[in-house]
Amino acid sequence: MRILSGMRPTGKLHVGNLVGALNNWVKLQEEHECFYFVADWHALTTGYDDTKKLRSNTIEVIKGFVASGVDPEKSVVFVQSAVKQHAELHLIFSMLVSVGRLERIPTYKEIKEEMNYKDLSSVGFLAYPVLQAADILIYMAEGVPVGEDQVCHVELTREIARRFNYYYGEVFPEPQPILSEVPRLPGLDGRKMSKSYNNILELDEPWESVEKKVLKMVTDPARKRRTDPGDPNNCPAWGYHKAFTTSQDELNWVIEGCKTAKIGCVECKRKLLENMKRVLDPIREKYNSFTDNDIMDIAIEGSRKAREVAEETMEKVRKAVNLLF
Amino acid sequence: MRILSGMRPTGKLHVGNLVGALNNWVKLQEEHECFYFVADWHALTTGYDDTKKLRSNTIEVIKGFVASGVDPEKSVVFVQSAVKQHAELHLIFSMLVSVGRLERIPTYKEIKEEMNYKDLSSVGFLAYPVLQAADILIYMAEGVPVGEDQVCHVELTREIARRFNYYYGEVFPEPQPILSEVPRLPGLDGRKMSKSYNNILELDEPWESVEKKVLKMVTDPARKRRTDPGDPNNCPAWGYHKAFTTSQDELNWVIEGCKTAKIGCVECKRKLLENMKRVLDPIREKYNSFTDNDIMDIAIEGSRKAREVAEETMEKVRKAVNLLF
Repeated sequence: MRILSGMRPTGKLHVGNLVGALNNWVKLQEEHECFYFVADWHALTTGYDDTKKLRSNTIEVIKGFVASGVDPEKSVVFVQSAVKQHAELHLIFSMLVSVGRLERIPTYKEIKEEMNYKDLSSVGFLAYPVLQAADILIYMAEGVPVGEDQVCHVELTREIARRFNYYYGEVFPEPQPILSEVPRLPGLDGRKMSKSYNNILELDEPWESVEKKVLKMVTDPARKRRTDPGDPNNCPAWGYHKAFTTSQDELNWVIEGCKTAKIGCVECKRKLLENMKRVLDPIREKYNSFTDNDIMDIAIEGSRKAREVAEETMEKVRKAVNLLF
Repeated sequence: MRILSGMRPTGKLHVGNLVGALNNWVKLQEEHECFYFVADWHALTTGYDDTKKLRSNTIEVIKGFVASGVDPEKSVVFVQSAVKQHAELHLIFSMLVSVGRLERIPTYKEIKEEMNYKDLSSVGFLAYPVLQAADILIYMAEGVPVGEDQVCHVELTREIARRFNYYYGEVFPEPQPILSEVPRLPGLDGRKMSKSYNNILELDEPWESVEKKVLKMVTDPARKRRTDPGDPNNCPAWGYHKAFTTSQDELNWVIEGCKTAKIGCVECKRKLLENMKRVLDPIREKYNSFTDNDIMDIAIEGSRKAREVAEETMEKVRKAVNLLF
């Protein structure tokens, strides 16, 4: 199956990206033909007003991909804006989607409310799901690993594919969302993990800093004293255990110990840190082993491969639409 | 001065295009560096649902350009969709324009009302003035020959240029509209000349057909009998005289004769036809002398030149916005 997924270069990647997406990407590349990209044009939809770090963030995101195990030999790792065909297909798709349809996409209002400190009035922001549809369909992708909240975008993509095929003849497949089984990793304060909340652990975060932050991390707020029993379901640290602790015995030890107050939060977190270290040490090491030039080489080569596939699709599209060239 | 103007390939060009725009284009190319293009992506904004003739219409429009005197040696004659950079710049500009700003552009509601038989609900139609801004600014054009109704689009273009320069540093000039002095040529029925009203004379219309249509053309409806005096200002044929009759004596003869009922409408139209023939015969002849292959050669070469300039601009844009490539 051809698979596509991408991330916006809004900052360095964090362990939430690793647990929620990258681990899954790494698995998928063993069995499928995967296209993974840095969505830099998408970053403009919410951040057109400050692009000073766009370039360096793009490099950091690719670094995060490969440090986490995305293999540029197995997967096509590329930068969206290096494949101009996305913009061309976006323009053509924009003729096939009504303003009203876009305004009714749940994420449109949700993100506007969530990021009410940003100017999200642009037509570029309104139309970003159309750009996503172009991102997906230009590679004839059949599977799109997404979070629950993005399923509505894959649905729009399917609609656009159907509409295009209806008017201009069969060109596109109808892609399916691939829902990740992993629940979202919470931020250190229990809220959604987000750079803007300052509650993240970066992928290349030095170990001392990880330790310090995890030990200070919010736990079940109802467990006020060491002798109070706790509820893992109300504890962000438990979310981390589920992501990083693989031994069932250790997981049982945490649940039991917490619920019966046999173990304290620090004890629990020490165990968690052991397991996090095993995962994060090699990633950090790999992360720091790359120079920006290494990353540029990967981006150039991946974008070249992506362009070839995208151009093939566009040739079909232009012919179907009856454009002169 | 660098000048840009374009036309949509919605059908063969007609004498209204000649009088209202092409004659002016031909004049401008003697003094300025002109870019003239077929706006095929724009044609999709109002005609995505039927593109069967898009390819042949694109060729006919270029034929009309050169038959009317646009010289591919002097001007850059190109096809919009052959210069993918327009789509790239359109995408970036779409981040800088609000949905509300686009909804308030007078032409948005006007065209929707005028073409209420069409589906104009798409985000592509809403954003077509943004695409126009990209068309203009990608060539750093300083002058845009437009009709009165398009001045608001040049205004938006200036706004986008200012906004881009403000956020990312000085890249774009602020173009000015160049208003044509020629009033709009009416259709044969007195309404706006439009293919959809079936009231046009095509540029390559055979002479017998021109004669027949002009002789049947609507005149001052108040002049019911030959002996009634007429009012040229209420007569579409007078609009044609103003466009095709160059002798002041003949123009005076028409005004006098009509107002005093000294001449009849047929007599007036015979004189008009004489003058139209002098203009239209060589255009039709040139029109028919081109093969589609000739036109393809012109389009390929012009689009190559246009791409060079457009790519130069995009290199500045990508650098200013801080995109990786």
